[in-house]
Amino acid sequence: MTQSHSDANESRLERGKRALARIDGEAGQNVIAALADIAPDFATYVFEFPFGDIYSRPGLGVRDREIAAIASLAAMGNATPQLKVHIEAGLNVGLTREEITEVLMQMAVYAGFPAAVNGLFAAKEVFAAKRDFAPAT
Amino acid sequence: MTQSHSDANESRLERGKRALARIDGEAGQNVIAALADIAPDFATYVFEFPFGDIYSRPGLGVRDREIAAIASLAAMGNATPQLKVHIEAGLNVGLTREEITEVLMQMAVYAGFPAAVNGLFAAKEVFAAKRDFAPAT
Amino acid sequence: MTQSHSDANESRLERGKRALARIDGEAGQNVIAALADIAPDFATYVFEFPFGDIYSRPGLGVRDREIAAIASLAAMGNATPQLKVHIEAGLNVGLTREEITEVLMQMAVYAGFPAAVNGLFAAKEVFAAKRDFAPAT
Amino acid sequence: MTQSHSDANESRLERGKRALARIDGEAGQNVIAALADIAPDFATYVFEFPFGDIYSRPGLGVRDREIAAIASLAAMGNATPQLKVHIEAGLNVGLTREEITEVLMQMAVYAGFPAAVNGLFAAKEVFAAKRDFAPAT
Amino acid sequence: MTQSHSDANESRLERGKRALARIDGEAGQNVIAALADIAPDFATYVFEFPFGDIYSRPGLGVRDREIAAIASLAAMGNATPQLKVHIEAGLNVGLTREEITEVLMQMAVYAGFPAAVNGLFAAKEVFAAKRDFAPAT
Amino acid sequence: MTQSHSDANESRLERGKRALARIDGEAGQNVIAALADIAPDFATYVFEFPFGDIYSRPGLGVRDREIAAIASLAAMGNATPQLKVHIEAGLNVGLTREEITEVLMQMAVYAGFPAAVNGLFAAKEVFAAKRDFAPAT
Repeated sequence: MTQSHSDANESRLERGKRALARIDGEAGQNVIAALADIAPDFATYVFEFPFGDIYSRPGLGVRDREIAAIASLAAMGNATPQLKVHIEAGLNVGLTREEITEVLMQMAVYAGFPAAVNGLFAAKEVFAAKRDFAPAT
Repeated sequence: MTQSHSDANESRLERGKRALARIDGEAGQNVIAALADIAPDFATYVFEFPFGDIYSRPGLGVRDREIAAIASLAAMGNATPQLKVHIEAGLNVGLTREEITEVLMQMAVYAGFPAAVNGLFAAKEVFAAKRDFAPAT
Repeated sequence: MTQSHSDANESRLERGKRALARIDGEAGQNVIAALADIAPDFATYVFEFPFGDIYSRPGLGVRDREIAAIASLAAMGNATPQLKVHIEAGLNVGLTREEITEVLMQMAVYAGFPAAVNGLFAAKEVFAAKRDFAPAT
Repeated sequence: MTQSHSDANESRLERGKRALARIDGEAGQNVIAALADIAPDFATYVFEFPFGDIYSRPGLGVRDREIAAIASLAAMGNATPQLKVHIEAGLNVGLTREEITEVLMQMAVYAGFPAAVNGLFAAKEVFAAKRDFAPAT
Repeated sequence: MTQSHSDANESRLERGKRALARIDGEAGQNVIAALADIAPDFATYVFEFPFGDIYSRPGLGVRDREIAAIASLAAMGNATPQLKVHIEAGLNVGLTREEITEVLMQMAVYAGFPAAVNGLFAAKEVFAAKRDFAPAT
Repeated sequence: MTQSHSDANESRLERGKRALARIDGEAGQNVIAALADIAPDFATYVFEFPFGDIYSRPGLGVRDREIAAIASLAAMGNATPQLKVHIEAGLNVGLTREEITEVLMQMAVYAGFPAAVNGLFAAKEVFAAKRDFAPAT
C-alpha cells in the first residue's frame, strides 16, 4: 500500500503538477494561478499534498477518487467553487454526466435535499459550460 | 435514467428492504429495529427513500454508491454510527479495506486531517469487529 | 401517529405536489422546474418525500414545520436559496415577519451570530421582494 | 417588538435564571453547574444572553422556540448534549413526544437521514429517562 | 478572571459600541446599519454580547481574539461576509497580512484545502480593497 | 514568506516529527501510533504536512497557531479528540488556561453556545488530567 517517501520534494511537486493538469485541467490551473500572488507557497502545497501525495497513490483509481471528491464537497455544502472543479474533473476522468448526477442525488440521503439540489445546480452550470448538448443520460 | 414511479408503495418498501439487507446487512437492520418503537414510520422511510428509491436506481453501481456514502459521512464528521454502517456496507459490496482506507485518507484534502483520522479510526473498529486478520492491503 | 403507506406512488406524488404548491408557492415551483432538465427524477423525489411524505403527516402543523425548516436551514448556514424559499413559505402558512425574525435571531444561540445575521439578511430580501411595506412587528 | 434594554444587568441575569429554570429544568442547571469551576463568567453569559435576552422576548412563544432549538441542534448534528437538554425542555413547555418526533423526522429533509436518526435516538434516551411509559402518540 | 456584571446595560451597550468601532471599523458599522430596519434589537445584541461582553474581557488580547475569529470563520466556511469583516479587523488590530495568510493556510489542516483556499480568496479581496500595494510579506 | 521546498522528503518528515513532539507531546504521538496499523502512510502525512510544512513555517508563532487550532476545532464541533490534543498543545507552547478558556468562550459568538460549552468541557477534562490544581486564572 505504501509508495516511496524518499523522493525529493522536487519530484513530489512535479508529480502533483502532472496529476492536477490531467485531472482538473484548466479549472484547477486557474485556482493555482489565483493563489500565486497572495500565498504562493500554498499553491505549491495544493500541488504537493492533494495531488502529489493523495491522488498519486495506487490504492484507488482516479475515477473512484472523483466520486469521493464530488460526494464530500456536495455534502459539506460550503465549497461550491471546489465542487465545480471536481465535477469537471469527474468528466475529465471518465465519469458520465449521469453518474455524477446520481452521486449528487444520493447526497440527499446523507446531507439533506438542499445539499443535493445545490450540487445538482452546480453540475448544471458545469455541464452547460461544456457547451455540448448531449443529454445527461 | 428514469425508472418507473408507478409502482405501488408496497413494492417500493419491499425493494428498499431487499436493498438494505443486501448492502448494509445486520448493521442496517439494527438501526431499523432501534427506530421501530420511537418512530416506526421513519423506519419505513429509511427503507423507502434511501434504499427503495436511491440505491435501487440503475445509473450508478452500488460499489460507487458506497464510496460516495463513506466519503460524505466522513467529511461531515458528525454521523459516526452511520459512517461505520457504510464502511461495513462497503466491504459487503466489494470494496477492499485498502480502497476504503484510501477514500478516508483522501478526506483530509476536502474536510481536514481530523475528519480523515476519525474516519480511519471508525474503519479500524469495523475492520477489527470483522475478526479476520487479513492485512488491509 | 401513522398514516397509510399503502397508497399508490401516484397519489404520493400528487399529494406532494399539492403540499408544495400550498406551502412554498412560486418559489418552490421554480426549484422544481430548474431540476427538470438535469435530474427529473429528483424533482419527483422532492415532491414525494419532503412534501408527499413528511409535510403531509398529521402529527405537526405546517406552521410548526416552517419554524423547524427556517431554524435548521439558518443554523446550517450553507443553503441560502432553500432558506429563502422557506422564509417565504413561512409567510404563506401564517408566520408573521416578527415570528420569522425571532426564529432567526434565536439561531445566534445555537449556531453563532453570523448564522443569525446571514439569516436575517436573507429574510430582509424575501420581505422586500414581497413589496408590501407593513412593518415587521 | 423591542423590550427595554435599560434594565440593570442584575435583572437580566435574574430574568435569565428564571427562564432557564422554567424551560430547561434540572438538565439546564447541571450544565451551568459544570461550567462554574472552569468558566464561571460563561455560566453567567448562558443565563444572560440565551435566556435573559432571547428566550425572554415576547415575539415568539417558548413552545415555538423549542421547536426551533430542537430543529437546529438536530440539523447541525454536533451538539448532542444540548439537543437532549432541549428535547427535555420541549416536553417541559408543552410539546408532545409525537411533535418532537415529527420535528426530528423532518430534519431528514434538510440535514439528511443520519441527522434525523441520531436526533431520534437522542429523543429515545430522553423519553426513556422520563420513566413513564405512555406511548409517543 | 471575572469582570463586574453589575454595570447597567447602558454601559454594556456603550462598551460594545466602542469596541466594535475600534476593532471592526467601517465594515462592522455597515452590518449593524443593515440590521437596523429588520431587527434593531439584534443590532443591539451584536454590540452587547460579542463586543460589550466577550471582546471587552481582559483575559485575551484583541490581536489573539482576531486570530481566533479568522480561524473559526474560515474553518466553518459558511460565513464569508463575517470572515471578511474579521480579516479587516485583524489588520486594524495589528495582524500583518502575512500572519493572516498563515492562519488561513493553516485551516487546510483542520478544515480541508477548500476552506483554506476560500479563506485566502476572501483575504485577497479585503487586502485589494485596502488599495495599498505593499506585498503581503 | 517562502521557505525552501528543495529539501528531501526525509528532512520534511524529520522536521514534522520534531515539531509534533515539541508541540503535541504524548497526545500527538498516541494518535500517530494508533494510525500505524491501519494507515501507516497517513501517519507519515500527519508528520509531513501539518507539522513538517505548516507548523514549521516562520510567518506565525506556534502560540498563535495553537489559538487558531483550538478556535477552529471548537467552532466546527465535530473533532473533539483533536480539540483535546490541541488544548494540551496550547498549554505546551505557553498559552495559559485562562487564555484557552477565553478562546473557547469566544466561539459562542461565531459558532454558538453549544460549541463553546462543549469546548469548555473538553478543556476541563484536559486541565483535570494535568493533575495540578492551579486555578485557571
